[in-house]
Amino acid sequence: MDFLVIGGDAAGMSAASRAKRNNPDMNVTVLEQTTDVSYSACGMPYNIADPDRTIDDLVVRQAQVFRDKQGIHLLTGCRAESIDPAAKAVQAVDHSGKKKTFHYDKLLIATGASPIMPPIAGVDLEGVLPLKRLSDGRHIREFIRRNEVKSAVLAGMGYIGLEMSESLKERGIDVVGVTRGFMSNYDEKIGDVVRQTLAAHEVPLYADHAVEKIEKDGGKLAVTCGGETLEADMVLMGVGVRPNSEIAADAGIALGTKNAISVDRRTETSIPGIFSAGDCADAYHVVTGEKVWVPLALYANRAGWTAADNICGKHSEIPGIAGSAVFKVFELEVGRTGLSVKEAEAAGFDPAAVTIEARSRAHAHPGSTSIWVHMVGDRKSGRLLGAQMVGKEGVAHRIKAPTVALHAQMTVRDFSQTDLAYAPPFSPVWDPMLTAANQLIKKL
Amino acid sequence: MDFLVIGGDAAGMSAASRAKRNNPDMNVTVLEQTTDVSYSACGMPYNIADPDRTIDDLVVRQAQVFRDKQGIHLLTGCRAESIDPAAKAVQAVDHSGKKKTFHYDKLLIATGASPIMPPIAGVDLEGVLPLKRLSDGRHIREFIRRNEVKSAVLAGMGYIGLEMSESLKERGIDVVGVTRGFMSNYDEKIGDVVRQTLAAHEVPLYADHAVEKIEKDGGKLAVTCGGETLEADMVLMGVGVRPNSEIAADAGIALGTKNAISVDRRTETSIPGIFSAGDCADAYHVVTGEKVWVPLALYANRAGWTAADNICGKHSEIPGIAGSAVFKVFELEVGRTGLSVKEAEAAGFDPAAVTIEARSRAHAHPGSTSIWVHMVGDRKSGRLLGAQMVGKEGVAHRIKAPTVALHAQMTVRDFSQTDLAYAPPFSPVWDPMLTAANQLIKKL
Repeated sequence: MDFLVIGGDAAGMSAASRAKRNNPDMNVTVLEQTTDVSYSACGMPYNIADPDRTIDDLVVRQAQVFRDKQGIHLLTGCRAESIDPAAKAVQAVDHSGKKKTFHYDKLLIATGASPIMPPIAGVDLEGVLPLKRLSDGRHIREFIRRNEVKSAVLAGMGYIGLEMSESLKERGIDVVGVTRGFMSNYDEKIGDVVRQTLAAHEVPLYADHAVEKIEKDGGKLAVTCGGETLEADMVLMGVGVRPNSEIAADAGIALGTKNAISVDRRTETSIPGIFSAGDCADAYHVVTGEKVWVPLALYANRAGWTAADNICGKHSEIPGIAGSAVFKVFELEVGRTGLSVKEAEAAGFDPAAVTIEARSRAHAHPGSTSIWVHMVGDRKSGRLLGAQMVGKEGVAHRIKAPTVALHAQMTVRDFSQTDLAYAPPFSPVWDPMLTAANQLIKKL
Repeated sequence: MDFLVIGGDAAGMSAASRAKRNNPDMNVTVLEQTTDVSYSACGMPYNIADPDRTIDDLVVRQAQVFRDKQGIHLLTGCRAESIDPAAKAVQAVDHSGKKKTFHYDKLLIATGASPIMPPIAGVDLEGVLPLKRLSDGRHIREFIRRNEVKSAVLAGMGYIGLEMSESLKERGIDVVGVTRGFMSNYDEKIGDVVRQTLAAHEVPLYADHAVEKIEKDGGKLAVTCGGETLEADMVLMGVGVRPNSEIAADAGIALGTKNAISVDRRTETSIPGIFSAGDCADAYHVVTGEKVWVPLALYANRAGWTAADNICGKHSEIPGIAGSAVFKVFELEVGRTGLSVKEAEAAGFDPAAVTIEARSRAHAHPGSTSIWVHMVGDRKSGRLLGAQMVGKEGVAHRIKAPTVALHAQMTVRDFSQTDLAYAPPFSPVWDPMLTAANQLIKKL
């Protein structure tokens, strides 16, 4: 059987590798338009923070290993241009510009997502840079080095903008954040704690602003937003990403939410035999059961496996995502899972919520700091709908407990009764999540 | 209504406070034999580590606050001697030695547990000290100060022994651990990692040894174990605790596993109207459904609440414990939840297990260390039965996720599909727990 994969990052290479493990005789071909495969894109902010590293540190497995050790026909510099579902064929252009046709029995579209470059004047100026692919990371590192960058505007303060604010400050670069809204998917108090930390680290925030235009001003870039002009050596474009779904749409494959490729629980698209996984595809939300588009690394890997298993004839379903995310910004850990109050309302729940401040360690234990827990439940069913946290310690892993509870569709009351291990260096006797759950029960 | 509580620590004071909040008109009386109520006993090793602190730091709420602010009749220095269920009366002796009778409508026995002092020669010598009550902590602090203790033998290396090894080393005291078995409730690899850390911190371990006798030898104590004699200024007795259930047994109340007071899910004993909570009572295990006795702080607090709610006429059931525990020893975090392989076999499961070594941070992220995850599943049902972990970071809170899964009776496969939040500073894309689950699935 010929299994063809378009896209050689997390989802594509996970699927290719797993298919070969499942079925070593399968003919597996991957078309990747860049020269990079299987890399840890999420590591780029931390890599850029250190002038002595190279972006290639983030490559998890070299292309040659996939070819030699795993027997995958991995073609880099080969761009898929169109899919012909009737002929079961993909048209592509190789690194030398030559057109090629690839036939398949099963196809996986793992084309990922691209950074949004808003249609404003100056978005194509030198020094206006996105951060999504490994090549973007290389460009940023090279641009900082060559131009001795001393200042940057972060256009957009999502996860990338927040992580890059820390990364660039670590390199002694002044940064200013410009963003429409700020952590709008989070509880206000959680967002406030992050805002205060940005302020403490001298990262000014122009919230409720968008970059309107960028101009070249001598050796600098002049960024206009909300009537003000900010000067900087570099502008990082982090306003969001969009799914690379055009090739699918052109082939008649149905798109869904946010123009992502619509897939079922087996990761199959509207055309039988064509699967999709990774940042280009949508997913089910385990709390709402509705389709969402949340392009994150773990789900891309997992969906790649699911696609491969189904393609190899093992029936496999993927439950979906829980809206989990975690990030570090300066000394803070910030995590979320499930639904915010707004998302819960939009999904037809009747949400109640609490936000509590607790301590990260036991009564009288040295080194304790504040930890804020926001928790959302449904008045009608009593179900836990979501949780968010921020603090200097004990957030990044703690948030995994309510995630498991969301997968199990637990009630807030059931969650409040869980036997969460306690020792004084790690939490109060009543874990802050249990305290939040106990408070929330009273509101349900 | 008269609600009488015997014992004024975690379970007793939680119950008394909650009953008063539920029903401010209720007449709530607590008999506590010591002068300490509501303290964080688990904090004692960390308190003892610091010569400049006082043990009273660990008092969470002063007796007077319970009396004045909460209206609880709290009698300290008042020891309950017997219960007469027919007369609904408790005989007690107050601080002046005077006998008193207390009548009740509902009774809560929250007498806690006592350290086991093995019947060996010399166990009553000066300097042979247990650590359970606040007064024990005071004695140890005072003994170290007065005698300028330079060396100690830890008899028993359970949680107290392990935590005290770090605490005493921090004060410059040489310690030797003597223990029958070592972390026998843990996977061998997890125990080995802890052993290596003890060795690295120069804590010799006489595992598979028990203290046979203790003799006075000049100013020192001579401890005999396995044919050897260890000299020390102090011997810490940490070989275990036993439930204080004699007063209940004498009143005809049924005892259960390990001689703990047997209670139902409402925390009621075999005699209607008499409840029991805290370290003296047993509990249901959420994985096996069987009775167990695991005296830990969170469950004591929670069971106190459950007792109070039922006593106040609100029907309330407590699901039970999941066998969760976490501790810190030197730079290591160690956690467990659910069943070990041995416990799973004893409970009639057909367990399979894996132990994996993974990284605590993402590929190429600086500062990454090893983390070991042991996971146990049931071949028959596919259920997750337990998990254990050890590492320098990311263990204490991570272990809460499988705890929630155990409460929800999730399968290993369901757990392997949970959307555990990922960011490079905190874990690989596939969290070590997911990697363990994926490995375990192959064995089920």
